[in-house]
Amino acid sequence: MSATPINLAAKLAQIEQPWSPRVIAELNDYQFKLARLDGEFIWHAHEHTDEAFLVISGRLRIELPDDQQVELGEGELYVVPKGVLHRPIAEHPCEVLLIEPRGVVNTGDEGGELTAANDVWI
Amino acid sequence: MSATPINLAAKLAQIEQPWSPRVIAELNDYQFKLARLDGEFIWHAHEHTDEAFLVISGRLRIELPDDQQVELGEGELYVVPKGVLHRPIAEHPCEVLLIEPRGVVNTGDEGGELTAANDVWI
Repeated sequence: MSATPINLAAKLAQIEQPWSPRVIAELNDYQFKLARLDGEFIWHAHEHTDEAFLVISGRLRIELPDDQQVELGEGELYVVPKGVLHRPIAEHPCEVLLIEPRGVVNTGDEGGELTAANDVWI
Repeated sequence: MSATPINLAAKLAQIEQPWSPRVIAELNDYQFKLARLDGEFIWHAHEHTDEAFLVISGRLRIELPDDQQVELGEGELYVVPKGVLHRPIAEHPCEVLLIEPRGVVNTGDEGGELTAANDVWI
């Protein structure tokens, strides 16, 4: 008998809409979410939690306070600390794995039209 | 000014010893750990937490109770539920990213010679 692993590429192939994280697994009260990013997101923060970004394909730039930024290529990880303003920018489409507690909204406290439905599984 | 991402391949290149998870980042009270796996581990469980395995290179088989098993290739994720006995087996060397709460010991409640020092960062 075999249990089934979660294939990130196969799950990503099911996602069309950018900036719409989709849950693929849970670890206690944390969630693994895949997302396709394309273009500029908005500045936002998550007041109560750190947020991890692992780039699966492409490149992601995350702008940070004080003119800092971090550039992530494939296989690179960055954890945005709790409460820190950040703005993800994908100059070309990229694919990321997010890890954060269940219930975190993609736009943090900012809201707006890029706010995605939460806890949507694929 | 640039912040520095964590490059998984570069960190893995610093790890020689198999079955010795090394912490590369924290997300709240969770840790990201990289490990090189080679051969058969021991049956064990983590009484208080789920444990996530993401294969970075190679293949990993995880034996589970009732003759179940899961086979993970590169880019595949599996979450072993809290309290479930499991035995990782790498027939050839493989590289994995583990995600679990700070303080989890690799051999769970079993102990033994494969028990690695905990909370060692690279």
